[in-house]
Amino acid sequence: MNAELISIGTELLLGDIVNTNSAFLAMQLSQLGIDVFYQSVVGDNAGRLKDSITAALSRADIVITTGGLGPTYDDITKKSVAEMFGVGLIRHKPSEQKIKDFYLYRGLKMTPNNLLQADIPAGSTVFPNDFGFAPGIALSSGGKTVIMLPGPPSEMRPMFENHVSCFLQAMTDSIIRSKTAYIFGLGESAVEDALRDLMTESLNPTVAPYAALGEVKVRVSAKAADAATADALIEPVINTIKEKLGNFVYGIDIGSLQNALVQELIHRRITAAAAESCTGGMVCASITDIPGASAVFKGGVCAYAKDSKQKLLGVGSSTLEQFGAVSEQTAKEMAKGARELFYADIGVGITGIAGPGGGTDEKPVGLVYIAVDSNCYCETKKLYLARRLDNDRSTVRRMATLHALSLMLTAALHS
Amino acid sequence: MNAELISIGTELLLGDIVNTNSAFLAMQLSQLGIDVFYQSVVGDNAGRLKDSITAALSRADIVITTGGLGPTYDDITKKSVAEMFGVGLIRHKPSEQKIKDFYLYRGLKMTPNNLLQADIPAGSTVFPNDFGFAPGIALSSGGKTVIMLPGPPSEMRPMFENHVSCFLQAMTDSIIRSKTAYIFGLGESAVEDALRDLMTESLNPTVAPYAALGEVKVRVSAKAADAATADALIEPVINTIKEKLGNFVYGIDIGSLQNALVQELIHRRITAAAAESCTGGMVCASITDIPGASAVFKGGVCAYAKDSKQKLLGVGSSTLEQFGAVSEQTAKEMAKGARELFYADIGVGITGIAGPGGGTDEKPVGLVYIAVDSNCYCETKKLYLARRLDNDRSTVRRMATLHALSLMLTAALHS
Repeated sequence: MNAELISIGTELLLGDIVNTNSAFLAMQLSQLGIDVFYQSVVGDNAGRLKDSITAALSRADIVITTGGLGPTYDDITKKSVAEMFGVGLIRHKPSEQKIKDFYLYRGLKMTPNNLLQADIPAGSTVFPNDFGFAPGIALSSGGKTVIMLPGPPSEMRPMFENHVSCFLQAMTDSIIRSKTAYIFGLGESAVEDALRDLMTESLNPTVAPYAALGEVKVRVSAKAADAATADALIEPVINTIKEKLGNFVYGIDIGSLQNALVQELIHRRITAAAAESCTGGMVCASITDIPGASAVFKGGVCAYAKDSKQKLLGVGSSTLEQFGAVSEQTAKEMAKGARELFYADIGVGITGIAGPGGGTDEKPVGLVYIAVDSNCYCETKKLYLARRLDNDRSTVRRMATLHALSLMLTAALHS
Repeated sequence: MNAELISIGTELLLGDIVNTNSAFLAMQLSQLGIDVFYQSVVGDNAGRLKDSITAALSRADIVITTGGLGPTYDDITKKSVAEMFGVGLIRHKPSEQKIKDFYLYRGLKMTPNNLLQADIPAGSTVFPNDFGFAPGIALSSGGKTVIMLPGPPSEMRPMFENHVSCFLQAMTDSIIRSKTAYIFGLGESAVEDALRDLMTESLNPTVAPYAALGEVKVRVSAKAADAATADALIEPVINTIKEKLGNFVYGIDIGSLQNALVQELIHRRITAAAAESCTGGMVCASITDIPGASAVFKGGVCAYAKDSKQKLLGVGSSTLEQFGAVSEQTAKEMAKGARELFYADIGVGITGIAGPGGGTDEKPVGLVYIAVDSNCYCETKKLYLARRLDNDRSTVRRMATLHALSLMLTAALHS
């Protein structure tokens, strides 16, 4: 079974928003075992929309549109599809009531065009919208199905996960399950080298690597009649990946280094703190993004100025004079200082030159020292993190943050 | 003149990466005055790619592809387009030399397939790739042009900006210039209400609002024969927007609240510091993301625990006992404490309940207090920032960060 995605909206054609809906839907469909060979974007123009849907229906079993279900004159999806299928629009009473209730409850005056969101093509299946007014709609005829979903991701995503996914599941005879191994410290090509046999030889499950800045994920996906069979296919492959890559695998389906760290801290009932210079709060912000972090992350200091490194973190003035603010010694004392200041089990210190200014021949932009300090584990890393000759501040800061989180995780695992 | 975008890559069809190239190119083309009516995505499949290009060429003057220029067997773009145009592939000597030099310089062994990246269709215009190996290519015939660009955004974006943009500019007879007003503190519908006449009546320049979380941007775009004429059309409209929205406009083409803040601090030669609880380092991380922030941002404390609020920031134990850690009084004392700890002119304090846990009837998830403290300006805000009933930690934290930056900017403007 295959599907095609059509995103509707002039704001996409103008580049005002990035099309995250297509990536979300493509991944969901892939997990359901439904192939996607084409995706397209059209504006709020009835003629071009109909042309696109006609072309898509000639190639695919299912066409999923996003956008154009709102109350204004340029929301043309339902009308266009209804005309193509030769049916009229009817008022969907529960959706109408929901809109009326909202305005009544808020004491607001409702303009009549709001009720247009409750109109659906006759004979449709309706998917409730739990986070907005316009319901989702499926319309089938002659073995082809058009599914119309709202454009805002905050409405579309939960609608797909809670309602559309089951509808599509019922149309297919197999499911796809996957597990993802999260890897830090190895580049994509090194991961590919290590796993090449697995990637080329294994057809079910498939093994595919994905690289993001500083990280590699390897997804293992199996197709089977049911979840238990798929999971049984995946398990031995995940174990092989762990064997081949060892400690570079920091978790399975763990989501991120900061989540791996927070879960490990919670599991071991230990705490952490951070002293940041060039990352300027990014390590703290990453960790505190994880719900429950407050129980194990005691806090951090963003110490740009030398005097705050001394005063708050107790970095020695002789250290700063002799080795400079960007040095192994300063990183070490910052880690120790963070640990002591916040009474934490693990402290991390990060100091470096994020750029674009401030670099010298001896200490170039991208030079970063990261130290971790705990009773059971101490380590300092000297890293060169600039990847380009031009302004690379964001890369240096993001890479330094990942390295700091990874070092903290290593220290936690040694506790 | 109109163009169509085709993104090539199976990883896009599987939803493994989000298609940011299309949004980037669409915005660039819009600024050049080139209309885009369709965008599409196809996998690494020669038949479907040719079908897509044929369909696009039947509708558009220019087709721009991204992806499929690499050295492996599934990089099929150049071969497919050359076949469609009935020309052969030839070796582009400068690109070949660049690849050979790289491997020689690094002392690495080059596999022959790497040189495939230097092959181009005969009769092409070549765009140098300053950040990778595969050059960009333009091939024209019968009034139609296909432009092939590399897939990685880090290669494609500078290639477009530095080389392709001029090539396209030469093909058009007008340019589009735009200025963007950045607005904080007013919702999208309030902005639309205030600017409705301007938006509906003004055709050149056009006036269009764009909403992101907590922020609204209004872009004013004019089409003209040259830049000076376009700018002269834009200027009075920008002035009208400033008049109608007053202080809610925090900058023109300023990019972000944190950039507006850092530029204002630099301009006034004053400094700032932050004490964060629920935002956990995000305010510091946002500010230090701006190059040059180190000159004006003295530092910050991420103080999750009550004892660090007391010990580091000097929040009174009686304050914490009587009003609690999430209270107006605590926020005020945190702001003052940050200012004193870092010897800064402006201090900000943020305390709240980000969720998902920790809320009560009296102090629900989403309740945030933000205080700013300086010699010239003090203010405290009580905000309810949760937008949904389910886990909204990320929204609460991001909104609180924006409000904190905005308050700091207000204090800076009063200095």
